[in-house]
Amino acid sequence: MDIRACLFDVFGTVVDWRTSVSRDLAAFGRQKGIDGIDWLEFAVEWRRLYQPSMDEVRSGRRPFTILDVLHRESLEKLVARYRIGGLSEADLDHMNRVWHRLDPWPDVVEGLTRLKSKYIIAPCSNGNIALMANLAKRAGLPWDCILGAETARAYKPMPDAYLNSCRQLGLAPASVMMVAAHNNDLRAAKAQGMKTAFVARPAEHGPGQTTDLSPERNCVDVSAPDFVQLAAKLGC
Amino acid sequence: MDIRACLFDVFGTVVDWRTSVSRDLAAFGRQKGIDGIDWLEFAVEWRRLYQPSMDEVRSGRRPFTILDVLHRESLEKLVARYRIGGLSEADLDHMNRVWHRLDPWPDVVEGLTRLKSKYIIAPCSNGNIALMANLAKRAGLPWDCILGAETARAYKPMPDAYLNSCRQLGLAPASVMMVAAHNNDLRAAKAQGMKTAFVARPAEHGPGQTTDLSPERNCVDVSAPDFVQLAAKLGC
Repeated sequence: MDIRACLFDVFGTVVDWRTSVSRDLAAFGRQKGIDGIDWLEFAVEWRRLYQPSMDEVRSGRRPFTILDVLHRESLEKLVARYRIGGLSEADLDHMNRVWHRLDPWPDVVEGLTRLKSKYIIAPCSNGNIALMANLAKRAGLPWDCILGAETARAYKPMPDAYLNSCRQLGLAPASVMMVAAHNNDLRAAKAQGMKTAFVARPAEHGPGQTTDLSPERNCVDVSAPDFVQLAAKLGC
Repeated sequence: MDIRACLFDVFGTVVDWRTSVSRDLAAFGRQKGIDGIDWLEFAVEWRRLYQPSMDEVRSGRRPFTILDVLHRESLEKLVARYRIGGLSEADLDHMNRVWHRLDPWPDVVEGLTRLKSKYIIAPCSNGNIALMANLAKRAGLPWDCILGAETARAYKPMPDAYLNSCRQLGLAPASVMMVAAHNNDLRAAKAQGMKTAFVARPAEHGPGQTTDLSPERNCVDVSAPDFVQLAAKLGC
């Protein structure tokens, strides 16, 4: 398989957003003396507002708006719903930037470092540039560049999110592999002519996860249990 | 000085385009049996078409077009002017991608590595994403992300080239330092509220260089003879 670059989904595939967000917010809540909030539920509810917020942009009802802004609007809804009072602008900003402080799955840094020796590696995430850059710097992710929704001006799984990312690398989609833990992301990438790799993340949604436990037929070229084994399969 | 990120001009400031382009094309010419071309002059003439080609975009006469395309158009003009025949599409593509194969000045990798320990570092160049990513990968430049004309959709020294780059990092211009060997670049960055650092590259234009040998007053906050000493001045 003649590929030159690997693009990665990030939330769920590279980082464990569920554990990271809930743990970070719980620590913040303790520090602020906010009681009675189930921060794991809060994290899951926040994530539940993610797709609907992007749908406003995908549908054309709203001009392209970066994820930091969408996250912030969703956060304000949740803060009202959970009746959390007394938060300053700086507090809300700190909470919103929890998405810049997500921890990678344990295999990620080694796997990416190996993949980088042979391929251009970059995120192709719905997260914006600042979010991705801050997250990568904190977690030590050795990206060659940052691509995704903000550079492509389109949210996955819209075709332009994939096509513009390949174009910005100067590569045909067939020379680029999309790596994700989500079959719908890979199906959309494959529909644009990209190669695809599935890496299962069976703990992304917690103990009861029933979806994306295995690759779907017809939309996945390569499957591996983690990034290190993906690197090995891709000759690194 | 409270800065969070350093953005870098690339052609001339980070890489020695003059030596790299002329040496690479001379080797290509020998391999192809192309005689009688002064490849150093050819490189300088190619670079001379750089600003006029971007002026078409800056003026609004042409929609935003990436530098790889502008470089290619300029190359075709020069190939005709120098009456170089017998080049295939693949040959022209190889020649055009010489701008992806530029060598850094000797202090660059060490200086950037030190600066990266404390700041977000990214190019803010008129080069497009693929050019910057390929150049960085070959030269070992440890950017945190790639910003510049293609992400900002504007060529320096237009204000949007600087302002959109800062915005994409989620930072106010006053928290971002522009590093360049060219006073006009720093003057334009300073006009948008950025901090500025001048690093002299007295060999960029060859032995007879008369411009940009020292920082201009009023537009430069910090001056250093190379990136390693810049890192030291910025506390790295």
